[in-house]
Amino acid sequence: MPELLPFEEALKAIEDGASQLVASEAIPLMDSLNRIAAQDICAQQAVPAFDNSAMDGYAFCIEDWQSDKCFPVSQRIPAGYAPERLTPNTCARIFTGANIPTGANIVVMQEEADVSKQGVRFPFSKSNSPKQGDNIRPKGQDIQLGQTVLAKGTKITPMHIGLLSSLGLTELKVFKPLRVGILTTGDELVPAGHPLQKGQIYNSNGPMLMALVRHSGYVVANCLHAEDTSEATEKAITELLQCSDVILSSGGVSVGEEDHVKSILQKLGSVHLWKIAIKPGKPLVHATLSGIPFLGLPGNPSSTLVTYHWFARRLLAKSAGQSLTCDRPYPVVAGFSREKTIKRDEFIRVAIGDDGLAYAHPQQSSGALLAACESQGYLHIKAHSNVEYGNHYDFYPFTGF
Amino acid sequence: MPELLPFEEALKAIEDGASQLVASEAIPLMDSLNRIAAQDICAQQAVPAFDNSAMDGYAFCIEDWQSDKCFPVSQRIPAGYAPERLTPNTCARIFTGANIPTGANIVVMQEEADVSKQGVRFPFSKSNSPKQGDNIRPKGQDIQLGQTVLAKGTKITPMHIGLLSSLGLTELKVFKPLRVGILTTGDELVPAGHPLQKGQIYNSNGPMLMALVRHSGYVVANCLHAEDTSEATEKAITELLQCSDVILSSGGVSVGEEDHVKSILQKLGSVHLWKIAIKPGKPLVHATLSGIPFLGLPGNPSSTLVTYHWFARRLLAKSAGQSLTCDRPYPVVAGFSREKTIKRDEFIRVAIGDDGLAYAHPQQSSGALLAACESQGYLHIKAHSNVEYGNHYDFYPFTGF
Repeated sequence: MPELLPFEEALKAIEDGASQLVASEAIPLMDSLNRIAAQDICAQQAVPAFDNSAMDGYAFCIEDWQSDKCFPVSQRIPAGYAPERLTPNTCARIFTGANIPTGANIVVMQEEADVSKQGVRFPFSKSNSPKQGDNIRPKGQDIQLGQTVLAKGTKITPMHIGLLSSLGLTELKVFKPLRVGILTTGDELVPAGHPLQKGQIYNSNGPMLMALVRHSGYVVANCLHAEDTSEATEKAITELLQCSDVILSSGGVSVGEEDHVKSILQKLGSVHLWKIAIKPGKPLVHATLSGIPFLGLPGNPSSTLVTYHWFARRLLAKSAGQSLTCDRPYPVVAGFSREKTIKRDEFIRVAIGDDGLAYAHPQQSSGALLAACESQGYLHIKAHSNVEYGNHYDFYPFTGF
Repeated sequence: MPELLPFEEALKAIEDGASQLVASEAIPLMDSLNRIAAQDICAQQAVPAFDNSAMDGYAFCIEDWQSDKCFPVSQRIPAGYAPERLTPNTCARIFTGANIPTGANIVVMQEEADVSKQGVRFPFSKSNSPKQGDNIRPKGQDIQLGQTVLAKGTKITPMHIGLLSSLGLTELKVFKPLRVGILTTGDELVPAGHPLQKGQIYNSNGPMLMALVRHSGYVVANCLHAEDTSEATEKAITELLQCSDVILSSGGVSVGEEDHVKSILQKLGSVHLWKIAIKPGKPLVHATLSGIPFLGLPGNPSSTLVTYHWFARRLLAKSAGQSLTCDRPYPVVAGFSREKTIKRDEFIRVAIGDDGLAYAHPQQSSGALLAACESQGYLHIKAHSNVEYGNHYDFYPFTGF
C-alpha cells in the first residue's frame, strides 16, 4: 500500500502542473458575468471625471461668504448639464452629481440654506463654519487616470460590470470557456430515468460533475459513461481527448481488478496514482495525455465532491486562466468534539447553528450527498488534530466554491 | 427631515410585504442548477437501495469464521451484478458498491486477506477481530424511503443535482424565473459607448443592476433609463409594469426637485419613502403598483450596491419563491479601529488580509465601485458601535450574495 500523500503536497503538485489552456476573445461587457478577464484594465478616464456636488444644495465661493450675506442665485445646474462660470458674490442652485462651476469651491446642502426671494443665506454657527471643498467630490477622487482597476485572471462579478461601465467600457477581453470532458465508470451505474436491476444504482456523479463544472463557469465538452472493461474505458477517454481541454473522471481509480482507468492512462500518457491523506476521498489519479490534464476522482459521491472542490476546481481554474485567490477560511467555533486524532486532513461537512457554532452532519461516513446538501460548508481539520468543543477551526462555506 | 428608520425595521417591512409572485414549471433536472425548487422532494427509494460493500475484498458469514480457516471462493460479485445466495463456509470475491449476497454479513478488505490457491484465510489478531457488519453499507443508511431530501424554496446546487440523480429523478418542479424590471434615472447618465458631454457620466447602475439580477438567478424583463421629467419617468414605469414581476430603480428618490420617481409612484400606487439608518445608502422608496412591488434604490453606485444586497435581494428572493435562509455572518477580527460612534448601521467594505484580519477599504465614502471590487465582503457595524482593533465583527462575504 503506497504511503499517503499529504493534502498540501497533492494540491501543490496539481497546481504546479497546471497552466492556462484557453485562448481569449472580446465579448460585450454585459455578457461577461462570471467570465475570466484576459487582460488588465486601466482606467481610461478619472472617476469622477469632474468636480461634482455630493448634495442637492448651493455652490458658491467660500471667499465670498459671510454669515448674514445674501447670495442671489445666478444659475441652476442639474446633474448632466454644463455649468457656466459662477458670477462672483452669487450662488448656483446645484444638484447631486452636477458639475461644480468654475469659481465655486463649496456646496452647502439645501437643508442648511436659508432661501428667500432675494437669494440665499448660509447662516452657519462658529462651531460649524463652512470650509472650502465641503460637499464636493473632486475629479479623480475614486479612480485616477491610468489606474489598474481589474487584473487579468479575475472572475467578473456584477460589481466589476458596474465599475467597467462607469469607465465607459462596452467590451471586455475574456478567456474562452474551458471545455471539460467528464467520464464516469462503474458497471453498477444506470442513468436516472431507467429501471434499476438488482445490484444497480443511479449514476449521480455524472450529473453532479456536469453541474459542478457549469457552476464553476466552464463548459461540459461531453459526459460519457464507460462500462468496466479496458476497451470501453479506452474508447471513452479517446473520445473525450478530441473535444476537451481537461478531463475529469470518477471511479475506477483504486487498485481493484475492476478498475481500468489507471492502466488505460498509463498506455496513453504519464500517470501519478496517489493515495491522499484526506477524508473523505483518498485515491486520486493525476495524468497528462497529449498535453491534456486528466484528474481521476474517487467514485464514492461524497469523495467525488470533496476532491472536486479541493483539487479539480483548482486545476480547472488555473487551466481556465483564473487567478484563484487562495480560498478564504473563516474561523468558526466547533459545537462538537471528537476524541480520535486522525492521520489525514479531514473535511467535515458542518451546518452552522443559530448559536453560530459548527455542527458535524451525522452522515460523515456516508457516500450519499445528503450530508453536503444539508450542510453549509467544510470544517477543515488538519491531520493529527482533535476536534474540541469551543475551539476555532477553519470553515469554508460552499458558497465560496 | 424624516427620522431615520432602523436597518432591521426596514428589512422586516420589506420582507413582510413580499410574497411569492411566480408560477411553477417542470423542467429537466439537468437544467435546474440555480433554479428554485417549487416542491418538497421525498425519497422514492432508500439509499443505498441494498446492502453493499464499502471495500474491494471478500464477503462471508461471520459465524463461519475462524482465524486459520480457509474459505473457498464460491462466487465473484462485481458492482452492478446480482449475487447468488452465499454457500455456507465459502466466501465471495466482492468489489466496492456490489450487492452483499444473502448469507454473508461481513466484508474483509483485500489487503487483510491471505489468498492462496485453496481459498482465502482471514488471520485477524485478537485486538482486531472481525465483527458482523464490517465494511457493509446497509440499505437505507444514508436516506430512508420517504425521507424529505429537498425543501420547497431551496436554490438548486450541484450537490442537489447529484443527490436527486442518485434517487433517479430526471425532472424537477421549479419556480419560473422572476422577471425584474430595472429603471435608472438621472440626466447626467450616458450609456457606455457614447461620447460624454461636460457634466455627464456613464451609467453604471443599469449594467450593474442587470448583472446583480442575473447573478441572483432572475431574468431582466427590461432595463430602461428615464430622463429627469415626470413624463419620461411615468412612461418608463408604466412600460416596466407591463413586463415585470418586481421593479427596481436607482436614483430619483431623494427630496430634490429633480427627483420625480416618488411623485409618479404616489400617482400610481401606495408608497413609503424611507431614510434608512444605514451607511452607505440612506434613501429608499418602497411601493406597490397594481400588486407589483417597486423598490427605489439610491443613485450613488455604492449605495445602489449595498441597498441591492441588503434589501432588493431579499425582496426578489421572496418574490421568486426562494427561502432565503438568513444570511450567515462570520466573526472576523478587525485590523483597524474607528473612534467615532455612528448612529447608523454601517456596511464597511473590507478586504481580509493574509493575517486573517479585516481591513477597511480606504474609499468607504466614495460613490465608485472600486472599493467593492477590491474587497471581499461587508463588515457589519451596528449603529452606535465603535470599531476596535482586535475585536470580532460580523463579516458577510460577497460570495454569499
